[in-house]
Amino acid sequence: MLDVKRNLTTIMDFYELTMAAGYLEEGYEDKISVFDMFFRKIPDGGGFAIMAGLDTFIDAVENLKFTPEDIEYLRGTGVFNERFLDYLSHFELHCNIWAIPEGTPIFPREPIVTVEGPSIECQLLETLLLVTINHQCLVATKANRIVRSAQGRPVMEFGARRAQGYDAAVYGARAAYIGGCSSTSCVMAARDFGIPASGTMAHSWVQMFPSEYEAFKKYAELYPDSCVLLVDTYNVMKSGVPNAIKVFDEVLKPQGKRPVAIRIDSGDIAYLSKKARKMLDAAGYEDCGICASNSLDEYIVRDLILQEAKIDSFGIGENLITAKSDPVFGGVYKLAAVKDGEDYIPKIKVSESAEKLTIPLLKKVWRIYDHYTKKAMADYVTVYDEEVEVGDGLTLFDPFQTWKERTYTNCSAVCLTTPIYEKGKLVYERPTVKEIRERCTVQLENLWEEMRRFEYPHKYYVDLSQKLWDCQHKMLTELSKVTGKSAE
Amino acid sequence: MLDVKRNLTTIMDFYELTMAAGYLEEGYEDKISVFDMFFRKIPDGGGFAIMAGLDTFIDAVENLKFTPEDIEYLRGTGVFNERFLDYLSHFELHCNIWAIPEGTPIFPREPIVTVEGPSIECQLLETLLLVTINHQCLVATKANRIVRSAQGRPVMEFGARRAQGYDAAVYGARAAYIGGCSSTSCVMAARDFGIPASGTMAHSWVQMFPSEYEAFKKYAELYPDSCVLLVDTYNVMKSGVPNAIKVFDEVLKPQGKRPVAIRIDSGDIAYLSKKARKMLDAAGYEDCGICASNSLDEYIVRDLILQEAKIDSFGIGENLITAKSDPVFGGVYKLAAVKDGEDYIPKIKVSESAEKLTIPLLKKVWRIYDHYTKKAMADYVTVYDEEVEVGDGLTLFDPFQTWKERTYTNCSAVCLTTPIYEKGKLVYERPTVKEIRERCTVQLENLWEEMRRFEYPHKYYVDLSQKLWDCQHKMLTELSKVTGKSAE
Repeated sequence: MLDVKRNLTTIMDFYELTMAAGYLEEGYEDKISVFDMFFRKIPDGGGFAIMAGLDTFIDAVENLKFTPEDIEYLRGTGVFNERFLDYLSHFELHCNIWAIPEGTPIFPREPIVTVEGPSIECQLLETLLLVTINHQCLVATKANRIVRSAQGRPVMEFGARRAQGYDAAVYGARAAYIGGCSSTSCVMAARDFGIPASGTMAHSWVQMFPSEYEAFKKYAELYPDSCVLLVDTYNVMKSGVPNAIKVFDEVLKPQGKRPVAIRIDSGDIAYLSKKARKMLDAAGYEDCGICASNSLDEYIVRDLILQEAKIDSFGIGENLITAKSDPVFGGVYKLAAVKDGEDYIPKIKVSESAEKLTIPLLKKVWRIYDHYTKKAMADYVTVYDEEVEVGDGLTLFDPFQTWKERTYTNCSAVCLTTPIYEKGKLVYERPTVKEIRERCTVQLENLWEEMRRFEYPHKYYVDLSQKLWDCQHKMLTELSKVTGKSAE
Repeated sequence: MLDVKRNLTTIMDFYELTMAAGYLEEGYEDKISVFDMFFRKIPDGGGFAIMAGLDTFIDAVENLKFTPEDIEYLRGTGVFNERFLDYLSHFELHCNIWAIPEGTPIFPREPIVTVEGPSIECQLLETLLLVTINHQCLVATKANRIVRSAQGRPVMEFGARRAQGYDAAVYGARAAYIGGCSSTSCVMAARDFGIPASGTMAHSWVQMFPSEYEAFKKYAELYPDSCVLLVDTYNVMKSGVPNAIKVFDEVLKPQGKRPVAIRIDSGDIAYLSKKARKMLDAAGYEDCGICASNSLDEYIVRDLILQEAKIDSFGIGENLITAKSDPVFGGVYKLAAVKDGEDYIPKIKVSESAEKLTIPLLKKVWRIYDHYTKKAMADYVTVYDEEVEVGDGLTLFDPFQTWKERTYTNCSAVCLTTPIYEKGKLVYERPTVKEIRERCTVQLENLWEEMRRFEYPHKYYVDLSQKLWDCQHKMLTELSKVTGKSAE
């Protein structure tokens, strides 16, 4: 099994430690703060992102521990005093953590994970949280774009060799499965997350034998029930497909077996797949699928289908596993409040651009669903202690262009913000990867079709409650007076 | 310490197992084959790539082992027979492995790693090798571009939070250091590879205190010898820099200490750095550096320096750690020969495009250096048993446009292909990461300046020996007759 006990504590930025040491020195170790993780931009200009990585983060949190070797290393840097090193060697988590469950569509600016707890602890989780969630949201979101482009045809994740390291391969495959891929070629991911494994042969198999025909024949004899032949080692039309058909006839047919597919990994897939389809059909193999691979992405898949390429499944490698066209999910982790007794003192980070503005206070995210269509209409961010009752109608307004109002009736509000840790104790019932994938499918059905476009999708609303907006607005006004810096 | 004993055996594609099972069934388990890893395209259109990741691959190879849980998982797939599962549970490596040492500039088409051994073993290493080397070559190459653009100013690697998973952060930092970065913010990478750690404070530190001034003051008191203050939480010119100067005056000056730097993480870096420089100089802090971060890459860094921004060091995050502008290093692993007794039977993979053509046989890569300039003139790929004596002159020819010849005199040939494993036994003396980084610096000094351009660099020659070219040409001619497929 996957090393779920892996100690990832030092996946942190050095400044977390210099700051933590400062908080300890300053007596801030028990000062309760609230940090939000949120993101600002949906990759590839899409209409939504998909939450992923939470379960992986939980594994990491469950194994937080500074080892004696870590302490020795930190002592050796000469930066830290013994009191802080002692604190670290007894480090224990006391935080509350909330998150939007994996498999949920998520949107810019809303908190997708919130950490509340002693300042030092919140700070020490920063990078570990960000890298985990950023990576998997990135790949789940990209995978879903590709899956959508394939219009129901299975999409197999084939990217391990081009992934940015081992975790990128394994957790990338996990995220791709959540986003809708049907299988992975990565054995470790298949083994550890219960994802169906896929893969048959490389060109080297074909080359290893005296001829393509002999290579195919041997494969069909060995795997008569899952016979997929790679037909482009030499020449798809003149050699690959004819040899495949010959082997289907000679090996499979006498056993009463049917071939699963041929795979084409080079050349013009549209042209070759149509030609191959005709040859297979003419030979009586209408049921033999055609699988395409070779540097595909959502745009090429869409175009291939538009051109009526005869493809039944897609294998997608580097463009999926690295989210090549937009390979960074820019989630950030920002201070939102500091507690003074029982009161939350709001905190804000201003910036030159309005998009970078943070939302203060401990918050909850609600999703407003229409009763009749079951579609999600908007997300609504409130202060943590507000309850949302739609009742006769809920009026939301654009937080930047506040004169833009919309009133929702016949709606219900579902709170997405879910408790994961309470005072350092895991309180979340962790779903399996398969359950998360199913959740994702259902959640996506609740989005308007207009949000699924690859370019210029409909923009989904993420609005603030009046109470929250008032708090933010008041802070901005005051800050502007002090520093001359406005929010927009 | 880093888990160098991590079992990564199942970082493999499922087809490696289906093929391996077939080789075993076919009696090919002892058939010796030769596989090359090579790449086809230098990322970002650069003039060279940098070899990295070999030591990490060695760690993985040293821990190859199918665990009982792996075997149980594979049995559960229903695809494999007991004989093969038994083979896997006793798996041991008997391969020879050669590689170009880390830190060396590498070029398309030449073998950067070669594996010779029983077919099954070669096949089972495929994905593990590719993912390791692809990832680190990618980041080392990108890091070097950014380091070059900074023209001697230190470049700090800051990308962990945006890396594609934990390994991407840690091994990415390793590769970035090899490529010339001066430090990393990632604690685990610093700890495990002896890379200097860097990092001081986030905006949250500033926000945690009642005022920016108090936050700076506390930091200076705590770290008077390494005082770097982040000045853009509220307003760089009106608040950040004035508060920093005040704290330098009040806290550092009385102790006879000097500030290290201020850091600017937003806004127009060129404008702000010049203004800040003037303010610092006027206050007597000419020696206080200015560090810039915020989504920088080699192009922005080059432009900032062109515009005479007053920046002394750069912190680079997502664009470096994900190689955002071109995030895939497309190394491939192809069969080059199969042994029949003592003879190597050449193997080739043809393709629609000449660039994708593979080079057959077991080979060596030589680098030709000019005696006077010490510059690398060309790489020369030979059959493994050829010796290269430059003597009175070595005439090379372009493998595609064979009429293009060049003769090198006053040159020496250095063999880059280095034994790593002999019959499964590690024979390579593993350099430290620091030594690799130093090797990289020296090697890059041996490249012509014209190859370091970011766009349209001088194209470096990778030529084949006559013996190798003849072998490839003969195979292509024969294949063309059989399949009607030509190489170009």
